[in-house]
Amino acid sequence: MTTDFLVAQIKQKASFLCVGLDVDLDKIPAHLLQEEDPIFAFNKAIIDATHSYAVAYKPNMAFYEVYGVKGWLALEKTIQYLNSTYPEIFTIADAKRGDIGNTASRYAKAFFEDLAFDSLTVAPYMGRDSVEPFLAFKDKFAILLGLTSNQGAADFEMLPTTEGQYLYETVLHTAAQYENSNRLMFVVGATQASAFKTIRKIVPEAFLLVPGVGAQGGSLAAVCENGLNSQIGLLVNSSRGIIYAGAGTDFDKLAAAEAQKLQLEMASILKAQSLLD
Amino acid sequence: MTTDFLVAQIKQKASFLCVGLDVDLDKIPAHLLQEEDPIFAFNKAIIDATHSYAVAYKPNMAFYEVYGVKGWLALEKTIQYLNSTYPEIFTIADAKRGDIGNTASRYAKAFFEDLAFDSLTVAPYMGRDSVEPFLAFKDKFAILLGLTSNQGAADFEMLPTTEGQYLYETVLHTAAQYENSNRLMFVVGATQASAFKTIRKIVPEAFLLVPGVGAQGGSLAAVCENGLNSQIGLLVNSSRGIIYAGAGTDFDKLAAAEAQKLQLEMASILKAQSLLD
Repeated sequence: MTTDFLVAQIKQKASFLCVGLDVDLDKIPAHLLQEEDPIFAFNKAIIDATHSYAVAYKPNMAFYEVYGVKGWLALEKTIQYLNSTYPEIFTIADAKRGDIGNTASRYAKAFFEDLAFDSLTVAPYMGRDSVEPFLAFKDKFAILLGLTSNQGAADFEMLPTTEGQYLYETVLHTAAQYENSNRLMFVVGATQASAFKTIRKIVPEAFLLVPGVGAQGGSLAAVCENGLNSQIGLLVNSSRGIIYAGAGTDFDKLAAAEAQKLQLEMASILKAQSLLD
Repeated sequence: MTTDFLVAQIKQKASFLCVGLDVDLDKIPAHLLQEEDPIFAFNKAIIDATHSYAVAYKPNMAFYEVYGVKGWLALEKTIQYLNSTYPEIFTIADAKRGDIGNTASRYAKAFFEDLAFDSLTVAPYMGRDSVEPFLAFKDKFAILLGLTSNQGAADFEMLPTTEGQYLYETVLHTAAQYENSNRLMFVVGATQASAFKTIRKIVPEAFLLVPGVGAQGGSLAAVCENGLNSQIGLLVNSSRGIIYAGAGTDFDKLAAAEAQKLQLEMASILKAQSLLD
């Protein structure tokens, strides 16, 4: 998917909502457990119910790997369903991969070519040759961890370097100079709203994937205040708050209502900032 | 596996060799492609031929994920074969995972409980709550990226912090204070031999997993000079140099010869340093 297409979708739906497909068999409605593939059945119902309010879906790999081959099959079915039924949707494999060159290329092939995701989250620790292999694919994006939403972000991401910056700022600065860095997006947690001003100075154009709204306590308004750019430039993720809104047979309707609630809030912010034209 | 058991195995075999099972269907002997599961057939032959010279095996997940469900099945068979046939072998899932608490717990369950690996490589960027979930499992180990063997290590790992250290030193110092840090090992690349002295000051007791000997150019003798501790404390990995030593029907014999060559070099170093008693 091109950035232009993504931006057009966001404007058309007046939404920059990403729904996190973090499926836990202990939490999904009991009646789905009788399906042949409960994980896919759950994802399909959630996607069908919420797709008018969302522009992106983000399965986190841990929730599939924990079910082994069964999980991998459900992941394959989910991405195939998204790509065939809703090709306008931006898809994110939340995998946080990172490894040296020839190994990173294999991860890239797995997620971009075979599974045909539009993007993949990537960990920056190992540097340039662990990131650039993901940037070699046209119309695909690597979403690099910048400043995450968890407490542990203080350990290293917020470590002051001798360049007078926190480590996460150096990561953004450095990665912005990698080859094909126009294919980079960055993860910034919604709980880090005070950092968005600084981040927008370093990467004014890049899309930011923002988890942490909802269950983790981040505020959409606070994220938007300094996070939006002229091309909107945000994908705000909600997982548990949407997909586990209900646990009965009407779980999909309740999920849709939660997604719509966020979409309406987004639409009102976009309108107020004249970003929908 | 306990650390004591691992050390006893190393002494008994006079080897701290880890064999990297990075299987590439374009590189394995052509006659194996007719097997029902060529990846597992290759791994089984390599393991059977080299297990007397090695104490650990390390499949890198990228090489399995790239084959989708087929790859995951081959991984399952490989770890099951190792655990049932050679239970004395230390197993490492080279996955470089890292995510927030509840997600990290799922990765831990997938690799430690379901697949029953002894250890998993973990990326440190997201800090404490992305690492500690892996340390909650008795007799399992998280092998944290410290200073890697690739050029990109210069980007962030070697970044000077205001604490007068490189970032990787801070990572080692900080992680050594995490809960259950006795279950931590660290990745240090063989190409970084000059750093082993510093690293041993920070984590004198920890096991270090050392990739980069062979194809990547690291030297075993240089690694051992400052890397060994009183409990040996090293696992040195070789992948391509061993598993692709031959491409004909005698590939397993040639792999064994390469593994033995490294084992003999290790035995002679251990003997010279009186570490085999």
